[in-house]
Amino acid sequence: MLGNFTYCNPTKLYFGEGSVKYLKEELPKYGKNVVLVYGGGSIKKNGIYDAVTAILKECGKDVAEISGVMPNPTYDKLCEGMKIARAHRADLLLAVGGGSVCDYTKALAVSVHCNEDPWEKYYLRFEEPDCEIVPVGCVLTMVGTGSEMNAGAVITNTAQKLKIGHVFADESVMPRFSVLDPVYTLTLPRYQMVAGIYDIFSHICEQYFSGTDDNTSDYLAEGLMHSLIHSSRIAVRDMQDYEARSNIMWTATWALNTLIACGKDTDWEVHMLGQAVGALTDATHGMTLAAVSLPYYRHIMPYGLAKFVRFAKSVWDVDAAGKSDEEIANEGLACMEGWMKELGLVMNITELGANEGMIEDIAKATLVMEGGYKVLTHEEIVDILKKSL
Amino acid sequence: MLGNFTYCNPTKLYFGEGSVKYLKEELPKYGKNVVLVYGGGSIKKNGIYDAVTAILKECGKDVAEISGVMPNPTYDKLCEGMKIARAHRADLLLAVGGGSVCDYTKALAVSVHCNEDPWEKYYLRFEEPDCEIVPVGCVLTMVGTGSEMNAGAVITNTAQKLKIGHVFADESVMPRFSVLDPVYTLTLPRYQMVAGIYDIFSHICEQYFSGTDDNTSDYLAEGLMHSLIHSSRIAVRDMQDYEARSNIMWTATWALNTLIACGKDTDWEVHMLGQAVGALTDATHGMTLAAVSLPYYRHIMPYGLAKFVRFAKSVWDVDAAGKSDEEIANEGLACMEGWMKELGLVMNITELGANEGMIEDIAKATLVMEGGYKVLTHEEIVDILKKSL
Repeated sequence: MLGNFTYCNPTKLYFGEGSVKYLKEELPKYGKNVVLVYGGGSIKKNGIYDAVTAILKECGKDVAEISGVMPNPTYDKLCEGMKIARAHRADLLLAVGGGSVCDYTKALAVSVHCNEDPWEKYYLRFEEPDCEIVPVGCVLTMVGTGSEMNAGAVITNTAQKLKIGHVFADESVMPRFSVLDPVYTLTLPRYQMVAGIYDIFSHICEQYFSGTDDNTSDYLAEGLMHSLIHSSRIAVRDMQDYEARSNIMWTATWALNTLIACGKDTDWEVHMLGQAVGALTDATHGMTLAAVSLPYYRHIMPYGLAKFVRFAKSVWDVDAAGKSDEEIANEGLACMEGWMKELGLVMNITELGANEGMIEDIAKATLVMEGGYKVLTHEEIVDILKKSL
Repeated sequence: MLGNFTYCNPTKLYFGEGSVKYLKEELPKYGKNVVLVYGGGSIKKNGIYDAVTAILKECGKDVAEISGVMPNPTYDKLCEGMKIARAHRADLLLAVGGGSVCDYTKALAVSVHCNEDPWEKYYLRFEEPDCEIVPVGCVLTMVGTGSEMNAGAVITNTAQKLKIGHVFADESVMPRFSVLDPVYTLTLPRYQMVAGIYDIFSHICEQYFSGTDDNTSDYLAEGLMHSLIHSSRIAVRDMQDYEARSNIMWTATWALNTLIACGKDTDWEVHMLGQAVGALTDATHGMTLAAVSLPYYRHIMPYGLAKFVRFAKSVWDVDAAGKSDEEIANEGLACMEGWMKELGLVMNITELGANEGMIEDIAKATLVMEGGYKVLTHEEIVDILKKSL
């Protein structure tokens, strides 16, 4: 059943090599005061910082900077940014970086004019902004999160040991524009590239493994999986393959901009498990997802068997002849495991810094979602995490 | 190769049964003067007219009407509408109907404030609007064209025997919002339903059968084809199946809102052939496409063999073992033909009112596109049309 839904995604995307030049078309639409947001400084080494600041200067902008946004952006860092953006009377927040920088900037956009504690309002009470939202633009340098075309923002509260994502309902939280230049992603270390690829795959799976019906969203999800599997195999052999990297970049955008969730239930339990691992280990997001996925999917498979059979046949071309549904489904997950190993993903949380003594804390930090094939009990979460060690 | 592109599609979609109620959220965003645009009056029989006008009244709108928009909207009708919209000082044009009504309304949106002859400017010189564009909203009652979420508008000039589509570059020509209620499509005659289904399939094929690369757009196109084939088979057995009809409606939107054309060449020669047939016979759009498709694809198949092989294997699950590429590709087209016959489509232009004596005129009215696997000569067009008789 394709349920009722509203879809609106107005982000303007400039895709392809050299598309940073389109900043010249976008920047004049906003006021003079721009806050440039970026991460650990790699953009200063690869020339992206210089390219962007030259255009900001050419457009006559008055620029303040927030630098050092970390891979799992913290609430403390958000508070620091709020002071800078308020003092600068920001007309536009320009994120230059990957999903973390982009997520952080969107969280900042709804916090600058917020009169309450943003962590409590947006991340504990999951309320929507009722203040002015500062426009966000994005120059993407890393692929995976889809943050460039959605209204989601994950923030980590280190004091509370919580990493929580909020997908805002208001489309004005989405970036007004995003520049997607695949060349900007070519200098990324292999570890980050493959973690990003798995983040994309996980986004698709989280929306695919739920519901019982044959709706358009699931067929689109399968199209995205086929494209990603195809291009990822080329990219791990040759990280400089522009075509593969550009298709991966484009797949990432559509894997998490609400399209493939339209009219259907979604799960997100793998992200809840992964984010709990991330909150306690500060491990790379995509790797935390990779490390918990197979134990999770093998656990829920009996509860959503028909979908796992479809996954095996449609995505992995498993030959079903003479096999039971369980055998077909298991073969599909084995194909997925083989592909994950081909990519060189981290397949357990031990390598990410977790150990048996941390399992109880990670389990406690894992939010339980209700849209998947099985609502997990605490014992099931502990069991899945132990199998992920 | 995923080429450079810009993507922006801000139309807000309200999808599902009962979603006409969202007009109450949208209408207050625009001024008092609304021009309601509709077709032959079926909306007065099925209650949609009453539902929409009640909300217009509730929102305090001053409403003028343009009724009688025909299936292939004419330039004469456009001129008539321009007078009404100008006299009413339209703040919003509200289309209630199928693709023809929606196309007409978008053509009107760029013509109301145009100081030149819109036919010459937009349809012969293919220029972009440099005047104010009147906002368009849409309540969709028929499925197929994708007009509800794109900037395209096909207009027929009966005097010149030309039916020409212009896809405007400016996203502000796109409907600001569209209401998509699958229930509104349930009363459609079978002939219109299946013509719409084939129109959708043709839109996907026009974008799929071009280029040589494995890019994300083609994988998404395959996902849409799978969804459409699946749901269409259910819908022809039971036209009242809400789930099938809703998935068909949703597939139609994404088949022609620019997504699956991103970064790749597209063809559109089937539409040029079909539109030429339509200009001379006034036949239903989707049926004109169905009647010329197989002769066209069988003609160009040798020039894009690899893609036709992929189509056979990925879309129709053709078993490739022990077969030549030609055999696989032919088997794919045979599967497509079988599905078309299952739907009950018109498979030749004779049934649509064309005859051998009209071939030369139809061929002359056929625009030659350059993005497909073979740029057709006049002789080839004549040959394809003869095989379509």
